[in-house]
Amino acid sequence: MAEEFEVVGRKFVDYYYHLFDNDRAKLSSLYQPNSMLTFEGEKILGDINISCKLNQLPFDQCKHVISTVDSQPSSTGAIVVLVSGSIQLPCEEHPLRFSQMFHLVPVAQGNFVVQNDIFRLNYS
Amino acid sequence: MAEEFEVVGRKFVDYYYHLFDNDRAKLSSLYQPNSMLTFEGEKILGDINISCKLNQLPFDQCKHVISTVDSQPSSTGAIVVLVSGSIQLPCEEHPLRFSQMFHLVPVAQGNFVVQNDIFRLNYS
Repeated sequence: MAEEFEVVGRKFVDYYYHLFDNDRAKLSSLYQPNSMLTFEGEKILGDINISCKLNQLPFDQCKHVISTVDSQPSSTGAIVVLVSGSIQLPCEEHPLRFSQMFHLVPVAQGNFVVQNDIFRLNYS
Repeated sequence: MAEEFEVVGRKFVDYYYHLFDNDRAKLSSLYQPNSMLTFEGEKILGDINISCKLNQLPFDQCKHVISTVDSQPSSTGAIVVLVSGSIQLPCEEHPLRFSQMFHLVPVAQGNFVVQNDIFRLNYS
């Protein structure tokens, strides 16, 4: 049976990529003013800037397919998650492999927000 | 100019894989009793068990090549790091791509130890 932090990590990941693929503007609700995103080496600070970045990516449609989700408890209720998977873009013949890590911190009512987010495409 | 957490992250990563490739038994010094490793989905708790796992991997010689290192500050002096790279094993014709995340926590004298460590090979 999965432990609580694994259930939370998996649910978060499913929800995150569901929003990314279907309603990307709503991803801003998963970040807060001191959240950090490093996207392909570019550093972005805060929910507003992160939301702008994600919504201005040069593709409108995409489909994430998750291969692995590994979660661990971090300090005082926080959770670290490493995701591997692929993203299918309309302009690309083949899906692109990626890795992404999240550091999730608890907020009210059992919810979590993203404190740290690092995304990298995996080129072979 | 790189920020302090980036310098720490990069130095840690260089040191970690140097030890892994050249003196793997010494990796135990980078973990502590409550450190966690998830290695290809297998969960291992504590410096002693983690050291056993890493030293019992089915290869003696290996060579890590780092492609990217992204670091962010986490809570109260901690640092999260996402690494992508490849590992060359003697029995494999081609290097294997991997992703690994570390959550580093500060200890005495400006040193850091691994609180969380998640490793995954990236299959295409």
